[in-house]
Amino acid sequence: MSGKNILFLSLLLFIPVSLAAKFLEWGDLIVFITAGLAILPLAAWMGTATEEIAVVVGPTLGGLLNATFGNATELIIALIALNAGLVDVVKASITGSIIGNLLLVMGLSMLLGGLRYKEQTFQSIVARVNASSMNLAVIAILLPTAMNYTSIGISEKTLQNLSLAVAVVLILVYALTLLFSMKTHAYLYDVGVAETEEIHTKPNIWLWSGVLLVCTLLVALESEMLVDTLEVATSKLGLTSLFTGVILVPIIGNAAEHATAVTVAMKDKMDLSLSVAVGSSMQIALFVAPVLVIAGWALGKPMDLDFKPFELVAVAVSVLIANSISSDGKSNWLEGTLLLAAYTVLGFAFYFHPVISGIG
Amino acid sequence: MSGKNILFLSLLLFIPVSLAAKFLEWGDLIVFITAGLAILPLAAWMGTATEEIAVVVGPTLGGLLNATFGNATELIIALIALNAGLVDVVKASITGSIIGNLLLVMGLSMLLGGLRYKEQTFQSIVARVNASSMNLAVIAILLPTAMNYTSIGISEKTLQNLSLAVAVVLILVYALTLLFSMKTHAYLYDVGVAETEEIHTKPNIWLWSGVLLVCTLLVALESEMLVDTLEVATSKLGLTSLFTGVILVPIIGNAAEHATAVTVAMKDKMDLSLSVAVGSSMQIALFVAPVLVIAGWALGKPMDLDFKPFELVAVAVSVLIANSISSDGKSNWLEGTLLLAAYTVLGFAFYFHPVISGIG
Amino acid sequence: MSGKNILFLSLLLFIPVSLAAKFLEWGDLIVFITAGLAILPLAAWMGTATEEIAVVVGPTLGGLLNATFGNATELIIALIALNAGLVDVVKASITGSIIGNLLLVMGLSMLLGGLRYKEQTFQSIVARVNASSMNLAVIAILLPTAMNYTSIGISEKTLQNLSLAVAVVLILVYALTLLFSMKTHAYLYDVGVAETEEIHTKPNIWLWSGVLLVCTLLVALESEMLVDTLEVATSKLGLTSLFTGVILVPIIGNAAEHATAVTVAMKDKMDLSLSVAVGSSMQIALFVAPVLVIAGWALGKPMDLDFKPFELVAVAVSVLIANSISSDGKSNWLEGTLLLAAYTVLGFAFYFHPVISGIG
Repeated sequence: MSGKNILFLSLLLFIPVSLAAKFLEWGDLIVFITAGLAILPLAAWMGTATEEIAVVVGPTLGGLLNATFGNATELIIALIALNAGLVDVVKASITGSIIGNLLLVMGLSMLLGGLRYKEQTFQSIVARVNASSMNLAVIAILLPTAMNYTSIGISEKTLQNLSLAVAVVLILVYALTLLFSMKTHAYLYDVGVAETEEIHTKPNIWLWSGVLLVCTLLVALESEMLVDTLEVATSKLGLTSLFTGVILVPIIGNAAEHATAVTVAMKDKMDLSLSVAVGSSMQIALFVAPVLVIAGWALGKPMDLDFKPFELVAVAVSVLIANSISSDGKSNWLEGTLLLAAYTVLGFAFYFHPVISGIG
Repeated sequence: MSGKNILFLSLLLFIPVSLAAKFLEWGDLIVFITAGLAILPLAAWMGTATEEIAVVVGPTLGGLLNATFGNATELIIALIALNAGLVDVVKASITGSIIGNLLLVMGLSMLLGGLRYKEQTFQSIVARVNASSMNLAVIAILLPTAMNYTSIGISEKTLQNLSLAVAVVLILVYALTLLFSMKTHAYLYDVGVAETEEIHTKPNIWLWSGVLLVCTLLVALESEMLVDTLEVATSKLGLTSLFTGVILVPIIGNAAEHATAVTVAMKDKMDLSLSVAVGSSMQIALFVAPVLVIAGWALGKPMDLDFKPFELVAVAVSVLIANSISSDGKSNWLEGTLLLAAYTVLGFAFYFHPVISGIG
Repeated sequence: MSGKNILFLSLLLFIPVSLAAKFLEWGDLIVFITAGLAILPLAAWMGTATEEIAVVVGPTLGGLLNATFGNATELIIALIALNAGLVDVVKASITGSIIGNLLLVMGLSMLLGGLRYKEQTFQSIVARVNASSMNLAVIAILLPTAMNYTSIGISEKTLQNLSLAVAVVLILVYALTLLFSMKTHAYLYDVGVAETEEIHTKPNIWLWSGVLLVCTLLVALESEMLVDTLEVATSKLGLTSLFTGVILVPIIGNAAEHATAVTVAMKDKMDLSLSVAVGSSMQIALFVAPVLVIAGWALGKPMDLDFKPFELVAVAVSVLIANSISSDGKSNWLEGTLLLAAYTVLGFAFYFHPVISGIG
């Protein structure tokens, strides 16, 4: 059993600890921290269960399953936060997930992989297709912000309608990217898939479905506690809701992908590492964000795609630098460091960012 | 005779219909629609006539002719609208043409071509040179907007002077790109030219000059009717002048290029298809826009290059995504879909955009 | 002795002339112009001296020396201007140096090189690494501007703190890029270095150290006179402090690099030419700018990284077009012309830019 697995198993201890913290009233800060830590191993188990089930049900259904449950943790946290009315935190966590996947995850992967291998290469074709899809997605989800920022007199209703229209287009595009990667151009993605396959006995679908169900319920429970205590806990730590949403929540929600991407990068499987990082950003922008807009509308907690203007800047900047670094199909430790430096600098900016935002 | 030709010939019927609509006073909306439809075949005939004359007068003079008359329809509509004082519509149609060529035309070409061929390739060298020229052009025409948006207290006179200075630089650059593509580096463009050549008898220059003259006059006539009825007709349709300028007018003005680009893409001639789409954007930005600025100044209807800030965002976004998709010299149906999705999303945004604009 | 050397030697005459102008009170404008001209040959001699000493002390120490003294002239002018309280001019000269190196220097090199050679090629690997570092640096130094522009209620203290934090990150990144280019991945840069090597006798380190010392002192002296007379002289010429800072000061400070980059481009050594141009921009953003922020803080003349919003636009635009042109590892005269056209258009914009700036 690897060190990583032991770490994840021991993190499961935080499930009872967080429950104890809640019912014995140890304080919001402790509930917040322990619930956050408890989510990490659950997210990892959900990932494993999804992959095992995918092996049984075959590539097509399995691919769909992976695509839908890939960001399940994030989606659950966001839905619970949305239902609790923390619309700003949810919106911030969308941009934060994109930034985090592109800069923190890709940066750590390239740095740690690059410390072991002088130069690492990856399939630039898939990288380009992904980059283009992501560019579109990022542009689309930021369009309402750009429109609101550059115009006067846009009503909340208009922003809401535009956001819904954008959400529908994005979900259609998402369905088409799945069709592309699983049907019409599946051969382009073969390399990445082959790398994950290892010979093992056929997994027990009932066992893993049970694991998936239990983990999903537990993640929902812990997310409930996380969200309930979020405002008090972070204000105790002197953090704004923007910083919490952009930096903290995505780190918790994406920890499993972080671990996977970095681990495989250190085994020189950069294709897989990048497809996790970029693919996760893409899923957030093409699937999670639009689902949240539609869910918010259905739940009566309307969520538009009007982000803070500085979030627009931060995402644009992250996409630009990630594209510029990944477009040549090669990476080294310096490129990883540059991505991490960009993340650090953006982190500073969000830390210092005032709560009140710009015009519009 | 191909289906496309039959379609274009039958559209010629709209010339008498539009005239009847005008003189029998069938209403502004009908005049607007029929005049718009009548322009489509005329623009196509102008294109054919220009190409036939180009064959006779030889590559150099022919290239110049193509470069000058390539966007003649657009230029005529814009000049008439400018003279009628519809400065905002003219400006919107400039950005709309750039967006339309890069997203709608290129997107349709890649999608329809990609449905027939799994992967299509094109000369990335020419694509890059064009992309760089277009980047410059787009940057230059958007600079006055950026300056006005980011500063306070810029007088209309200053914007006018800056726009004129920019226009002169752009026309010089346009002349230099012609020199580059027709003289010093003509060999780079050979592939594209060869694709268009078909063996046919030497065309009759007098016949085609006559066709060109008649079509130009008819386009001017129909454009006059289009512009006269534009405001009433579009407000009856519930559309803003911004949406009309950015989406409707460019579709009418560029229909011929659209048809050409898509047709050749479906014959797997992606080089030619892209050079029509990107070349047309480039001509708008490097030639049509500066000519309009200078013409407006000469006509006493001063037109600066101060667009709505959101137009700046839309063009920047279109250039970024078109560059990201075309830079690898390959295309597939998904990339076409992404461009069309970007166009759709921008279309929604312009539809919902309020008439009053941002700061400055 | 080449024509260039004769020119530089004769420019040395401006040292006594500028001193005479100052002490005989010929007027601020004449002092300003003669001091500016006197700096040009001194900067060139400093460059030569640094390179000769670098040959003696070996590649590692020599590389460090080059990296530190490479922009010494700029740094000296900026430090003196900062100490004189001309914070706005110093900030403008940072963005102006980046723009000037990317557009004016690279543009002239590609144009003049391209007039002699049909197509010039360069190592795109190094170009990409440099471009990515520069993207990061540019993003980082513009982040405080972006934050201030898109938000309300950011205190000067916050901007100052954010700027200091960014400065520390940038200096660390600079150190890491040196480690990368001189140690871990030095082989990537071999081609560029080999091109500069010419067989010559071992230089006299004492002689060149003396030259370096004398030139540094003289540059400081002339910069003092330049800065003292800057405001009066430029207002006599009808120029704003913004235009002076963005266009004039960088041309004086970077003249030596300009000459080197263009000269080697005309010998078809594009690798070296680009590494001078891009490397110089990179040094400004990763080293000079952060040093000035820290020095300003130490000198009690706090300088933040909050530029005018239009400077942000100008730098972003320059980086985009320079990346788009250099990313394919090939250049021709048209690409050089496009860069120069972009510089000209930006120059117009800064000329017309009002002194008062945007929101925030």
